[in-house]
Amino acid sequence: MNDLATLVEAVEPVEDRFALMADQRHSGLAKPQGSLGRLETLAAQLATIARVCPPPAVGNPGLIIAAGDHGVHAQGVSPWPQEITTLMVESFCAGRASANAIASACGVRVMVLDAGIAKPPADHPVIRTAGIMNGTRDLHVEPAMTVDECTAAILAGAALADRMIDTGADLLALGDMGIANTTPSAALIAAFTGQSADLVTGRGTGIDDRTLDLKKTVVADALARHGEDRDPLRTLASLGGLEHAALAGVALAAAARRVPVLLDGVNTVAAALAAVALCPDVLGYLIAGHRSVEPGASAGLAHLGLEPILDLELRLGEGTGALLAVPIVRSAAAVLREVAGLDELGA
Amino acid sequence: MNDLATLVEAVEPVEDRFALMADQRHSGLAKPQGSLGRLETLAAQLATIARVCPPPAVGNPGLIIAAGDHGVHAQGVSPWPQEITTLMVESFCAGRASANAIASACGVRVMVLDAGIAKPPADHPVIRTAGIMNGTRDLHVEPAMTVDECTAAILAGAALADRMIDTGADLLALGDMGIANTTPSAALIAAFTGQSADLVTGRGTGIDDRTLDLKKTVVADALARHGEDRDPLRTLASLGGLEHAALAGVALAAAARRVPVLLDGVNTVAAALAAVALCPDVLGYLIAGHRSVEPGASAGLAHLGLEPILDLELRLGEGTGALLAVPIVRSAAAVLREVAGLDELGA
Repeated sequence: MNDLATLVEAVEPVEDRFALMADQRHSGLAKPQGSLGRLETLAAQLATIARVCPPPAVGNPGLIIAAGDHGVHAQGVSPWPQEITTLMVESFCAGRASANAIASACGVRVMVLDAGIAKPPADHPVIRTAGIMNGTRDLHVEPAMTVDECTAAILAGAALADRMIDTGADLLALGDMGIANTTPSAALIAAFTGQSADLVTGRGTGIDDRTLDLKKTVVADALARHGEDRDPLRTLASLGGLEHAALAGVALAAAARRVPVLLDGVNTVAAALAAVALCPDVLGYLIAGHRSVEPGASAGLAHLGLEPILDLELRLGEGTGALLAVPIVRSAAAVLREVAGLDELGA
Repeated sequence: MNDLATLVEAVEPVEDRFALMADQRHSGLAKPQGSLGRLETLAAQLATIARVCPPPAVGNPGLIIAAGDHGVHAQGVSPWPQEITTLMVESFCAGRASANAIASACGVRVMVLDAGIAKPPADHPVIRTAGIMNGTRDLHVEPAMTVDECTAAILAGAALADRMIDTGADLLALGDMGIANTTPSAALIAAFTGQSADLVTGRGTGIDDRTLDLKKTVVADALARHGEDRDPLRTLASLGGLEHAALAGVALAAAARRVPVLLDGVNTVAAALAAVALCPDVLGYLIAGHRSVEPGASAGLAHLGLEPILDLELRLGEGTGALLAVPIVRSAAAVLREVAGLDELGA
């Protein structure tokens, strides 16, 4: 896929009739009806995605962490220096970050996309580089990206997703890294859900009251600057980040390949809103891994109609909340595939 | 351990100072303070249990499914025949039940204890047999077990826990199987929490309104028959089941060996209440895997002060909810063990 229109066109809606087949199959298993609750709903969704019941096993899940920097950092919306983006990406490569520890504990392969880091990290086998620009412009004063830059970031995410699926990935979790990236996330969530900057702007990694007030003003100003245009691509380019665009591309490409997409926290929810705005049929492929404490995450999930699997008060990003949900998704598929029918009991 | 007093005496309280060490260590990791939420609390608890920080990896988790039958089945509290207990245990042995599918997806070893099944299942390498009695007496009209029978079931559970720990288990999840066993669970939960039969008696695997009314009456009658005696062992013997006693024994033995215990649904919560009544220091070793929809589960967890990791509307038992929480506990330990310190970033 080397153009966005082709990518969007390749996404076909999930097929609900496979959910009915999953429900029927669950009813015939050797367990009380409905006794696995949310696990049964999840398994049914996997069947609608794969167009087969039981759905295939989740045997080779992958995580894509897209990283980028943000011109809006100059407004003082984060207490951390941008250099942390680079250092954390190097930590992902060294296998020493929280995402690595949890990915290893949950059996998930990790890849990193440098979607546009200010100070590019050293080359490493797990990094791919989009090569578009070294961070966005300041969305407080001008569009963060041009439409062409944004499209290139979407396609870079899609290309990495395709590559992971080509090498066996059968589920893709989304993760993010980017100092100050909850500011563009808040702007995107406000734009795509229609909620106010006040309601969807949160403390991110843990800013103080004064910085939170500033951040809300920056988000509100950016929304005012951008104006009423809700064209998905122009909105994403104007208010987003390179990692948001890349993650939207991952979601599009995964959906086009009929691979489930597991969302993490607020930055991935913002990316998902953009992907669904670009292509509404993506929605059926999305699974919400957890409920971030960031208020924009809940606003975005509610807008998408997604109920998260976990609620563990996380606010780290890196894909950590999505990773923790992987074994639950894997279990949902396993029950529908492996459990004996009532008619087989004692046979 | 071949006597209950020795077993209870072997349990030492967890050491809270290791939670402080864990908090300090979390603060120094390369991530925003507190950003892993409940995962950090869990890791701190693992440190208090192991008396070392970081705590050891959760590398070899095990599930013990204790199974039993119940004289109170004769009162019509369940729509299922008792034979299902036997058939489901045979399904565990064949690796074809929900617990097996999820255990396999989550990397957990399964063992089964026939704590007292009416029609004993065929021998199998994963089953151990308590050999006490083939089901309890009807707790509606008389004590379900004598104190000696109950003690023997506790020790049978403890023996299997010891055996699994001897062969490497570093976390034990509790699971249950027993047609009609939510009736003794409701009675135990009412007795140990002081809540009414009405409040803690639920639909179990899914009974109709008429059966639910009958079940509430049976539980209330049993509590009236038993009277005010709250001696832990006599209460467990009078109102419980053989699998409840065995699971209490698993919890006691695991605590004595400083191994964390992961609770599943209402039947394991009832067993945990009994274990904590027998030995209050067991509480520090307990982790609540999920919130069952059965009302007694929430009443019991609230009494113990435990907040479950998952809430997925499960009501199956077999350890399924505990199993789904295992990767999250494993991840909590992994973060504290494996993540780089802030001081190592860019080093």
